[in-house]
Amino acid sequence: MQTLDKTQTKFAQLTARLSEVIDIESASSVLYWDQATYMPAKGASARGRQLGTLKQISHEKFTDPKIGELLEDLRSYEQSLPYDSTAASLIRIARRDYDRAVKVPAAFMAKLCRHQADCYEAWAVAKADNNFAAVASELETTLELSRQYADFFPGCEHIADPLIDRSDYGMKVSILRPLFAQLRQALVPIVEAITSYPPADDSCLQQEFPAAQQLEFTHTVVERMGYDFQRGRQDLTLHPFMTSMSIDDVRITTRVYEDRLDQALFSSIHEAGHALYELGNSPELEGTMLAGGISSGVHESQSRLWENLVGRSRGFWECFYPQLQGVFLRQLGNITTDRFYRAINKVARSLVRTDADEVTYNLHVAIRFDLELAMLEGKLAIRDLPEAWRERYRSDLGIVPPTDSEGVMQDVHWYCGTIGGMFQGYTLGNLMSAQFYETAVKAHPEIPVEIEQGNFDILHKWLKQNIYQDGRKYTAAEMVDRVTGSPLSIDPFIRYIRHKYGEFYVI
Amino acid sequence: MQTLDKTQTKFAQLTARLSEVIDIESASSVLYWDQATYMPAKGASARGRQLGTLKQISHEKFTDPKIGELLEDLRSYEQSLPYDSTAASLIRIARRDYDRAVKVPAAFMAKLCRHQADCYEAWAVAKADNNFAAVASELETTLELSRQYADFFPGCEHIADPLIDRSDYGMKVSILRPLFAQLRQALVPIVEAITSYPPADDSCLQQEFPAAQQLEFTHTVVERMGYDFQRGRQDLTLHPFMTSMSIDDVRITTRVYEDRLDQALFSSIHEAGHALYELGNSPELEGTMLAGGISSGVHESQSRLWENLVGRSRGFWECFYPQLQGVFLRQLGNITTDRFYRAINKVARSLVRTDADEVTYNLHVAIRFDLELAMLEGKLAIRDLPEAWRERYRSDLGIVPPTDSEGVMQDVHWYCGTIGGMFQGYTLGNLMSAQFYETAVKAHPEIPVEIEQGNFDILHKWLKQNIYQDGRKYTAAEMVDRVTGSPLSIDPFIRYIRHKYGEFYVI
Repeated sequence: MQTLDKTQTKFAQLTARLSEVIDIESASSVLYWDQATYMPAKGASARGRQLGTLKQISHEKFTDPKIGELLEDLRSYEQSLPYDSTAASLIRIARRDYDRAVKVPAAFMAKLCRHQADCYEAWAVAKADNNFAAVASELETTLELSRQYADFFPGCEHIADPLIDRSDYGMKVSILRPLFAQLRQALVPIVEAITSYPPADDSCLQQEFPAAQQLEFTHTVVERMGYDFQRGRQDLTLHPFMTSMSIDDVRITTRVYEDRLDQALFSSIHEAGHALYELGNSPELEGTMLAGGISSGVHESQSRLWENLVGRSRGFWECFYPQLQGVFLRQLGNITTDRFYRAINKVARSLVRTDADEVTYNLHVAIRFDLELAMLEGKLAIRDLPEAWRERYRSDLGIVPPTDSEGVMQDVHWYCGTIGGMFQGYTLGNLMSAQFYETAVKAHPEIPVEIEQGNFDILHKWLKQNIYQDGRKYTAAEMVDRVTGSPLSIDPFIRYIRHKYGEFYVI
Repeated sequence: MQTLDKTQTKFAQLTARLSEVIDIESASSVLYWDQATYMPAKGASARGRQLGTLKQISHEKFTDPKIGELLEDLRSYEQSLPYDSTAASLIRIARRDYDRAVKVPAAFMAKLCRHQADCYEAWAVAKADNNFAAVASELETTLELSRQYADFFPGCEHIADPLIDRSDYGMKVSILRPLFAQLRQALVPIVEAITSYPPADDSCLQQEFPAAQQLEFTHTVVERMGYDFQRGRQDLTLHPFMTSMSIDDVRITTRVYEDRLDQALFSSIHEAGHALYELGNSPELEGTMLAGGISSGVHESQSRLWENLVGRSRGFWECFYPQLQGVFLRQLGNITTDRFYRAINKVARSLVRTDADEVTYNLHVAIRFDLELAMLEGKLAIRDLPEAWRERYRSDLGIVPPTDSEGVMQDVHWYCGTIGGMFQGYTLGNLMSAQFYETAVKAHPEIPVEIEQGNFDILHKWLKQNIYQDGRKYTAAEMVDRVTGSPLSIDPFIRYIRHKYGEFYVI
C-alpha cells in the first residue's frame, strides 16, 4: 500500500513537471502565432529573445535529472499497466522524448538554433537574388551540424536516422529508402501516362476572386468539416500553418490570392485537417505530453486525407460546388461541376512542390529525400547540389528549373532546419492518408455517400475514435497497424490514384 | 582590476537572471493580450493554467536566493556609481522589487490569486443580479487576505501602506490622506458651483456613429500624437487597456459604442498616452527591470495628460474638429466647435467613476480610497459597505446609486484585487498630469499653439526627455521633484480646473 502511494506520488511529481514544460511550450506557440499574425513589425527583435528564453527554460526543465530519476523509478509501475493505458503511455512517451533531449547538449542546440536563424536570413537574400553561392557556405555549416547532431546518437543504422527520428519517430532509412523507391517506380509511369494527354483546363480557377468572399466560403467549408470556431480561429499569414495552444485552442491560418481560387480553399482544408486531429485528442490528454499528433507523417496524413481524399473528391464538390457557384456566380456560373472537378485535379509536371498535384507530389519529395541522404553520406557536396537537383528533376519529372530559386532554393526546410529528416513526413502522410481512408470506407461504406451530402460525421467520428483521441500514445507504425491491420504500404495510395485518375486516363 | 572583473561578472549574472524574468513576464503579456483579443472562447481554461505556470516560474526565478546574493555583492558597486546611472538604478530597483517579492511567501500569493479568480466570478454574477449579499463573504475573505498581505511587512506605518506600495511605491496613507482631503475640500465647492448652472448639452455626442469611421478617426488622432503603428497596434476588447511586450511592441485596445462618440475616442487617447510613456523608454532599458513606468500614479499621469489636458483642450479641437466633422458630416456638420468642446467637457454629478468628467472624477476616487482605509482599519464591516457607499455618494456628490450594482459593485478592483492600494493611482495621476503639464508649458510656452496646429512634437519630446526615457529609474516623488522642482501638490490641478472651467462658470 505504501509502495503504491509512493508510486502515485512519483507519478504525480512527474506529471506536474511535464505539465510545466507543456505550458511553457504552449506559451511559445502563442508567441509564434502572434509573431506570424498580429505582432507589429518592430517587435521582432525582442520576440526572438523571448522565444529563446522560453525554449531554454523548457529545455532546462525537461532535461532536469529529477525527471530522469522519476522515469527510472516509475519503470516497474509502467510495466504493471496495460501498454495502451494513458499512464503507461505517458511514462513511455516522456521517457522517449527525455532520452533524446538529454543526448544532445543544450549548448549544441543553442548553436544550431543560432545558425539556423543566420542561414534562413542568408537564404532569403540568396533566393531573391537567385544566387546559390551566397548561401552555400551557410548550408555547408548546416550539413556539418546535421552530422554532428547524428553523432550524439551512436549506433544508429544510418546517419540520417536520428534526424528522421526527430519528426518521424521509428522511421529509418532502411525502411524509407525501399518504400520511396517502390513508390517512385509505381508513379513515374502513371505520370508519364497522364501527361501524354492534353492537360486539364484549370483556367476557371484563375480569375478574380475577392478575398472576403473566398474567406467566407472557406470558413463555411471548414466549419462543415467539424472545425469548431469556439475552439479555434483562422487568420491570415504569409505561409499557412496550424498551431495548438491547448486541446481547446487549435488555430489555423491561410493566405488568399485574389487571382487564384485554390490557394486559400485547399490550404484551409489542409490546415483544418491538421487541426481536427489535435482538437480530437481525448480531453484527458490536455496539458500532457500525449497531446498532439504522433509524428509529422501521421499529422500530414490527416491534413492530406481532408485536403485530397475528401476535399478533391467528386462527391465533396457535388455538395459544395453549387454553393461555390452561388458565391462566385459571375466567375463560375457557367462552369460545370465536372470541369471544376477536373481543374482542381489537374496533373502536370511542375517545378514547385507545394503547388504540385497529388500524383506528382511524391516525386518532388523523393528527390529531396534522396539528395538529403547523399549529402549526409558524403556522396554529394553542397557545391554540386544545384546540378544534382536539376538532374533529378530532368530524370524524374522531365523538366528542369530555369533558376536555382525555383530549384535548390525553393523550399525553406534545409535553410532553417537540418539536412536530413525534413521531407519524409510529406510522403509518409500521403501514403497513410490513403491507407487510413481505405480502411475507414471499408468499415463504413456509406462515408462517400455522406460526403456527397456535405456530412462528415461518420468519417470524423471514425478518425476520432481510431486516431485522434489517442494523441501521441502510439508510434506511427503501431498506429498504422492498429488501425488498418497491415503495415504501411504504398498499395492503398497507388490504388487510390489509379481509381481516381482512371476515370479520365488509361493508366 | 580583478575585483572590477569580478564585479562585472556578477553584474552580468544579475542582468542575465533578471532578463529571463522579464522575458517570462513579457510572454505572459502576450498571453493576456491574446486572451483579451483573439483567443477562442473555449481556450480560457488552459490559458488560465498556462498563465499560472508562467507566473510561478517567474516568481521562482526572481526570488532565487542567488539574486539576493548578487544584489548584496553588488552593493558597493552600486554605491560607487552615480545614483541616476542605468547600472545603479537597475540594481536599486531590482533590490526594491526583490525585497518585496521575497517577503511574501509564494504559497500565499498562489492562494490570493486563486481567491481573486473566485471572487471575480462571484462578483460578475452578483453584479448582474444586483445582489451584494452573494459576494459579501468572498469580499470578507479578500479583506482578510489583504490584511494578511500587509502583515508580511511589519513596521509599516499604516496597514494600507504595503498594499499601496505595490503599485505606488513610496506613497503612504500619511501622505495621501491629507492630500486627498485637501483636494476634496477644494473640489466640492467647485462642483457645487458648476452644477448650479444648467448642464452642458452633450446630445451631439449621442448619435449614431458607425464603428469603422470612429476607429479610423481615432487611429489618425493617436498616430498624430506620436503613437507608432510599427511599434504597436490597436484592437478591440471589452475594456480598453495598454500592454507592453517590449519597448518596441506596446499595444493599446479600445471599445466602440455606435451610439456614443466619446468612448472609443477618449479611451484611445488615454491608452495611447500610457503607450507613449513605455514607447519612450530609452532603448537601453529594453529587457531590463527599468523598462516600463514608475508607478500606477505616474503611468496614469501620462494617460490623463494626453486624454484631458491635451485631448479635451480647446486648442486640440480647433485642429481636429473640422476633420471629425468631415468624417461625421451628417451628425456634426451643424454643431459648432464651441458646442462640441462644451459637450466633451460636460460636468455632472454622476454615479460611475469611469464615465465621470475631470472635475468630479477625483471625488469618486476619494470615496473608494476612504472606504478602503476604513475597512482595513476595522472601522467598516463588509456588511455595512453598501450603506457607507451610498452615504458618501450622498454627501460628496449629492446623488445616491439606486442599486448596489451601480454602487458598491461598480468597479471590479476590490473583487479581483485587494482591499487597499487599488484606487489612489487614479487621483495621483490626475494631480501629476496637471503638475507636469504646467511645467512643460512653462518651459515651452509654444506648446498650446503647436497643439492647435495638431503638432505634438515639442510636448512629446519634453515628456520623453523628462519622464519617458528614464523608465522606472526614479520613484514617483523623485520624478515629480526632478521634473517640476516641487513636491506633489494639488495646486496645479486646481489651477487647471479653475482656469479651464472659469471660462464658462464663476467658480
